[in-house]
Amino acid sequence: MPSTTLSPTSRTSIGRGRNRMVEDRAALHELLADALVAHLGVTVERDGASHPLVLPTAYAVDLDGPDRDGTLYLHGSVAAGWLRASTDRTVCVTVTELDGLVAGRSAFHHSMNYRSAVVIGRARLVDDAEERQHALDLIVDHMIPGRSATLRPSTRKELVATAVLAVPLHEASMKARAGGPVDEPSDVEAGVWGGHIPLRRVAGRPVPDADSSGPVPADVVGRAAAL
Amino acid sequence: MPSTTLSPTSRTSIGRGRNRMVEDRAALHELLADALVAHLGVTVERDGASHPLVLPTAYAVDLDGPDRDGTLYLHGSVAAGWLRASTDRTVCVTVTELDGLVAGRSAFHHSMNYRSAVVIGRARLVDDAEERQHALDLIVDHMIPGRSATLRPSTRKELVATAVLAVPLHEASMKARAGGPVDEPSDVEAGVWGGHIPLRRVAGRPVPDADSSGPVPADVVGRAAAL
Repeated sequence: MPSTTLSPTSRTSIGRGRNRMVEDRAALHELLADALVAHLGVTVERDGASHPLVLPTAYAVDLDGPDRDGTLYLHGSVAAGWLRASTDRTVCVTVTELDGLVAGRSAFHHSMNYRSAVVIGRARLVDDAEERQHALDLIVDHMIPGRSATLRPSTRKELVATAVLAVPLHEASMKARAGGPVDEPSDVEAGVWGGHIPLRRVAGRPVPDADSSGPVPADVVGRAAAL
Repeated sequence: MPSTTLSPTSRTSIGRGRNRMVEDRAALHELLADALVAHLGVTVERDGASHPLVLPTAYAVDLDGPDRDGTLYLHGSVAAGWLRASTDRTVCVTVTELDGLVAGRSAFHHSMNYRSAVVIGRARLVDDAEERQHALDLIVDHMIPGRSATLRPSTRKELVATAVLAVPLHEASMKARAGGPVDEPSDVEAGVWGGHIPLRRVAGRPVPDADSSGPVPADVVGRAAAL
């Protein structure tokens, strides 16, 4: 049975800032649905030394995927270096949405409003053709809901060039902050102003490319309107 | 003399997607000025095993900092686990701005418009009191330009609780994508629609907290108007 809460392991337990810890797995799912970019962290080994590498990437989630608490999918070129550094290794996938800037009454109490999830797990290279195709459809539909059904099937050549990685959603933690500053009472009493600036992402009107004619497809119009 | 171009080392050289490589250091500086959140990648060792950990964090840049090509500053609680995992270690700091969704004529040619910088370097814990204070001012002013000058000085207790990390901006690479899809000629000829949805971040009206009275400070008004 899937977990309804986030029960971090020692790798994902939150040390500092427990007051910002989110334990409801539904909040994690909502963040992963809202955000568009993940940051993938891998350990790269080169010349006998290793270092972390963090790259931005598209992603999608399948809550009914093969892993107990759902599966997070990433894709990339089969020639990408990060792919070799990820396969069958422990990776970290972090998804962050910035919701505001918090103007405290002191430098110390400046902060940001955000939601952020950290997923740690062993990355599996997806071999099964059906799972790969499903994951690629989910990634396209995460960008623009409904889009994959409107497109021609991928060619064999396209599928061969694309690798898909699966990371279990099981080992995850989430933090969130919202609202105004939490200031020192003395600064509040001194009458200093404190507050926050809400931030959000908006979409502009869809831009057809030079080769396009006819109306903008409904899925693209809908995506732009929903953002 | 500072570098004017990005001359990646083997650790930051771009393998796949050279067509998206940005070589102008000024573009890196512009991205770091525009973005608000960085993703810090560190290698965490625990129970004899190591894994990558990626955390979102505020940051600031000092192009006149102690490192030849400028210094990137991060801050956090002295008690934070990632701080111990970063100090005198190689870290990766990645900054990404999402600029659009690219609706290609096939799943394969779906993409995102973005600017992303990867900085790899040895993190130094800033001991010098003057450099620390300067870095903390820069981090506050990166969030809300001009703000640090309006705030009371940090207390000794606040400074003791705050750690500052410095990462040289020297070893960096940047990629960017803009515009519409690059599709297969056969899909273009078939008359399929292709284009992109521009995305941007906007600020709402500043929200005073319940303890605030009087006008919203000019720096806060200015920040919200400029975003």
